[in-house]
Amino acid sequence: MKGRAPGVAGRLGPGPEFDRLRTIFARLGRAGRGLGDDAALVRVGGTTLAASVDLSLEGVHFRTRWLSFGEIGRRAAGAALSDLAASGARPLAVLASVGLPARPRRTRLDPGAEIMAGVGRAARAAGAAVVGGDLVRSRRYLVDVCVLGIATRPVGRRGARPGDGLWITGVLGGSGRALRVLRAGGRPRGALWRRFAEPEPRLTEGRWLASHGVHAMIDISDGLAADAAHVAAASGVALEIDLGLLPCWPGVPARAAAASGEEYELLAALPARFGTREAGAFLRATGVPLTRIGRCVVGAGVRLTHGGRLVSAPRGFDHFAVR
Amino acid sequence: MKGRAPGVAGRLGPGPEFDRLRTIFARLGRAGRGLGDDAALVRVGGTTLAASVDLSLEGVHFRTRWLSFGEIGRRAAGAALSDLAASGARPLAVLASVGLPARPRRTRLDPGAEIMAGVGRAARAAGAAVVGGDLVRSRRYLVDVCVLGIATRPVGRRGARPGDGLWITGVLGGSGRALRVLRAGGRPRGALWRRFAEPEPRLTEGRWLASHGVHAMIDISDGLAADAAHVAAASGVALEIDLGLLPCWPGVPARAAAASGEEYELLAALPARFGTREAGAFLRATGVPLTRIGRCVVGAGVRLTHGGRLVSAPRGFDHFAVR
Repeated sequence: MKGRAPGVAGRLGPGPEFDRLRTIFARLGRAGRGLGDDAALVRVGGTTLAASVDLSLEGVHFRTRWLSFGEIGRRAAGAALSDLAASGARPLAVLASVGLPARPRRTRLDPGAEIMAGVGRAARAAGAAVVGGDLVRSRRYLVDVCVLGIATRPVGRRGARPGDGLWITGVLGGSGRALRVLRAGGRPRGALWRRFAEPEPRLTEGRWLASHGVHAMIDISDGLAADAAHVAAASGVALEIDLGLLPCWPGVPARAAAASGEEYELLAALPARFGTREAGAFLRATGVPLTRIGRCVVGAGVRLTHGGRLVSAPRGFDHFAVR
Repeated sequence: MKGRAPGVAGRLGPGPEFDRLRTIFARLGRAGRGLGDDAALVRVGGTTLAASVDLSLEGVHFRTRWLSFGEIGRRAAGAALSDLAASGARPLAVLASVGLPARPRRTRLDPGAEIMAGVGRAARAAGAAVVGGDLVRSRRYLVDVCVLGIATRPVGRRGARPGDGLWITGVLGGSGRALRVLRAGGRPRGALWRRFAEPEPRLTEGRWLASHGVHAMIDISDGLAADAAHVAAASGVALEIDLGLLPCWPGVPARAAAASGEEYELLAALPARFGTREAGAFLRATGVPLTRIGRCVVGAGVRLTHGGRLVSAPRGFDHFAVR
């Protein structure tokens, strides 16, 4: 989740976006208690509610010439639901604020209705209902999705411990590859297109891991290397990742896969006893592979190796970086 | 609340924004069950959670030359909290998505931090915590606030019955007056400025009314006449309002007060037995006046009178109207 930060200022990864967040959360002071992790946890009666917001903007997160309005809505909701997945929560309800130009572009269908229908499809697939929304005239399209879920066993970013194994669901790099094709004026096809346009939040997978003792989790939205840094900072440990172990999209080099954002796979810190037998059970239960890519050790930051050699971290996705 | 709509398509007030909403909610179909009222109601364990989102955009809802960044955040959160007030809910948690330009304009303070601090001030004043947020680079400033609350006695728009009295909290017209002064290049002062820049959601007032048998409630965000039309449509009754009874901001004519948006007062349909004695108890409990301005009758729509004569409805605030 972009721009999410723990309550304790200073426990954030590096980069200009996070410098800003440090200032912001420091200013929030007492009213900001509980900030952190992919989803916020709120006690409601005897239940733990997980809540998260995810803002998608035209020109930043999507282009209307790349995606249909339905895909824009579905993708925005998928990104928000992915935060619930990383918290081990079961989705309950979705609210969406939509900004759209006063005059619809020349299209057969109403863009606002299409966007909301896409949000509705993602909600339905996740077992949640769309319960509210706001609709505002805007120069550019925007979709802000708020998701609410129930967390029976809430998982955060700060529970990783030295000795934990680092595991990743699915394969990485498809989203970045699709983006390269689109930027070059091409059109990704088949599975690559679906990977980009219809990301599937790893909800079943997140709940399975939550019920099997995961110590910390994050969803890959900014890129593996960047998101691993958030877990390292929040948990106060160092993460060692062997890029040679990375499950990559066909034809995508490991380094590119580690930089690819909006993948919506889960990075999990699991106790050392969790091994290939447990990963097999995960695959049978969810249909998604779970691959060990490294470990947590005493220290700070992320250490990437490839073929036994230290490699520098690829750039993740940082909205506020100058480029 | 702008753009909020009941689950049953067709139960909306008139206007192009609502034509769009009809299409949208019709498309949501099954996943959109429960849509309606100022806040959505979601059962969580044994508790009823009230949830609402409210999107504020630069150039539509605020201008950075009129308001400080702190005021922008506080005002956006106040608007969202007002939806909880109209639902009779007690605020619990706030999440905010903020969009802001990559390079802060020449200012001593970080605009993002200022906006979030303003959100935090409104949350704190309402007894809620800021639990999450998202931060995204954007061409123009935007703040989308999601509020969560507990509704012990949830109130909606659709419970008004023929014979009910229509009551309004506080006085109307200050927000519109301040806007006129600003648009003319002036600077509202004192109470008028606070009315515009620091609207106070009627949370205590909403809960008092909820616990005293209110049948239906709405907060005045689009203007009294427009919001009354939503109650009439949702409840399947006609609303008669006597503009001569309207409590108006000093110097503001009743017709302008009935058109003034972003007032965040509550319009309440109360059983006929509710009278001046009860309004006195409300004033003693909350410090805010409660004035009877009309009644609900069999029929449809809103009927405005002034000095016994029928008057046409003033224009409310409709984002999608061409003007």
